[in-house]
Amino acid sequence: MMNKMESFGNIRPVNTGFYERAQQRLDKLTKPPGSLGRLEEFARRLAAIYKSDLPEIPKKVIFTFAGDHGVAEEGVSAFPQEVTAQMVFNFLNGGAGINVLARHAGADVVVIDIGVNFDFGELKGLVRRKVVHGTGNIAKGPAMTPAEAVRCIEIGRELAQEYADKGYRLFATGEMGIANTTPSSAIAAVITGNPVADVTGKGTGIGDMALNNKVRVITQAILINRPDPGRGLDVLAKIGGAEIGGIAGLCIGAAENSIPVVIDGFISTAGALIAYTLNPDVADYLFAAHHSVERGHQAMLTHMNLRPILDLDLRLGEGTGAALAMTMMDAGLKIYREMATFGEAGVSDKNE
Amino acid sequence: MMNKMESFGNIRPVNTGFYERAQQRLDKLTKPPGSLGRLEEFARRLAAIYKSDLPEIPKKVIFTFAGDHGVAEEGVSAFPQEVTAQMVFNFLNGGAGINVLARHAGADVVVIDIGVNFDFGELKGLVRRKVVHGTGNIAKGPAMTPAEAVRCIEIGRELAQEYADKGYRLFATGEMGIANTTPSSAIAAVITGNPVADVTGKGTGIGDMALNNKVRVITQAILINRPDPGRGLDVLAKIGGAEIGGIAGLCIGAAENSIPVVIDGFISTAGALIAYTLNPDVADYLFAAHHSVERGHQAMLTHMNLRPILDLDLRLGEGTGAALAMTMMDAGLKIYREMATFGEAGVSDKNE
Repeated sequence: MMNKMESFGNIRPVNTGFYERAQQRLDKLTKPPGSLGRLEEFARRLAAIYKSDLPEIPKKVIFTFAGDHGVAEEGVSAFPQEVTAQMVFNFLNGGAGINVLARHAGADVVVIDIGVNFDFGELKGLVRRKVVHGTGNIAKGPAMTPAEAVRCIEIGRELAQEYADKGYRLFATGEMGIANTTPSSAIAAVITGNPVADVTGKGTGIGDMALNNKVRVITQAILINRPDPGRGLDVLAKIGGAEIGGIAGLCIGAAENSIPVVIDGFISTAGALIAYTLNPDVADYLFAAHHSVERGHQAMLTHMNLRPILDLDLRLGEGTGAALAMTMMDAGLKIYREMATFGEAGVSDKNE
Repeated sequence: MMNKMESFGNIRPVNTGFYERAQQRLDKLTKPPGSLGRLEEFARRLAAIYKSDLPEIPKKVIFTFAGDHGVAEEGVSAFPQEVTAQMVFNFLNGGAGINVLARHAGADVVVIDIGVNFDFGELKGLVRRKVVHGTGNIAKGPAMTPAEAVRCIEIGRELAQEYADKGYRLFATGEMGIANTTPSSAIAAVITGNPVADVTGKGTGIGDMALNNKVRVITQAILINRPDPGRGLDVLAKIGGAEIGGIAGLCIGAAENSIPVVIDGFISTAGALIAYTLNPDVADYLFAAHHSVERGHQAMLTHMNLRPILDLDLRLGEGTGAALAMTMMDAGLKIYREMATFGEAGVSDKNE
């Protein structure tokens, strides 16, 4: 994993000594050792990231980045492009899936216009960080200029810093962008090295013919743009998207602030993959929310050695899977904080 | 699925017309059709069970049945038998895993002594329904008399009725009983027809030699007792357990009251399997909480055509997985209740 970008950002790997210390506490709790499975894993990882013997239940925020994609004109999506902007209004009015599930998880939602092809003007609740009015059509040329790609990453990092300063201690990523499974599949193919057809799915619900066209469009985008798999910024600029760049930057910024970040589904994972290419140490701070229905998700997770928390056949995006996963991470922390030890409860430990 | 016991209890199958009606509402919400995957399934099933166009978030209760097992003397468990009673005290004091996760889920916990080999006397919070002071050693004879098995089922049914009357609308099962994976594996082998070795695992954490012994003990228990796979009460009495019978009765009673019931892990699923043998219509009301680490769990779920909600490597029991699964069912209901429709939000529907 040697490349010149690998130290992008100021990320410290998590101290593995903390994992052992956390597991020692978990093994004193009134249950067979390891019997709470992944809840113990979440508690162990969070305690280590927070460097705390008894971590608080964290204040949570989900960042939903919105952006449009020039490649939508190639007929790769089941929905028209104006839905991106319409859904931004839906997010701000609290009626979308992410609003419902964020409330369920006790998380705030921050909606960022990082690249929507619509001028919202001043809107209560909208964070305005527009870098592009939709990306260029990647089947014909680059998505963005290198400077625009850098700007997307920096916006994510800045938001991470801002919300760390506000006291949030658990982040999640989400996105909205008609056609954005197309650049995500392109990123997956280039960085993981899998064939395009193996990492391209039906997105919001296209048919078989449209899927064949989508594979063709992505193949063409890679051939024309020739992104360098070892350089995340090059991949992002050439075949990425603004919201994908924002997510990548948020991952870097979360890790820089020692804050765990829950990666939602397929598109968010493409963003995390860009971040991972920029600095593999970011993976210590990543939690994969769920196993998306979208083909190619697993290849990206495997590349980063991440195991998803949930598998609920979700394919909505927005951060919905991440919101649900946050509740499981809370459950792990509550186990860690609240369960009695064998000694406290007067329960006999395992036969020895 | 024809046998003479199949109409045990007064269970009405769920009206499938309600599933379609619920899906119609789900398809109007601002998301690609089906994109919230299993959350939509939960909402659809719950709306149909509740026969409601807009179901309330249900009041929840987890029934944790405790019982001992004579077969513990065969060295099939990693923990000594007194732990069953000690854990009952831990439940009542709020320090066990189930207490923590029930609080997380907003559920109450009801702890029932249905067969513990210890006299608790009057204890605040303990529901006293002791049928046996531990079962007989199934490697040498039956677990219970037929009358005791019936009594266990009736206790479960009565509790279901009592908590339905109190306004609870979502039930979950849980259990505590040192050695109770042994009768559960025996039940799984007899009812699903799988070889004993294929449905027997390491429980709370025994080694390979002890596992071989456990397989031998279960094989012997089946040979000696000759349970009739088509008669759930015969299986329960001969190779079951008191808490397993209580769980079976609770499933029947939940279905009789049109209340969904979340089945926890391996042992709870053995209880549900007894209920299913008594009346297969109970399955319309069952939700499988999670995929247990314990070998043989999948065979039982497959037999009842249930797909688990979570897969978190849990193997604690008590109802812990069920508590977590309840939160996902709530999330499905909240989606159903709270999301905006395309019309309300002014969002364009799919290209047609």
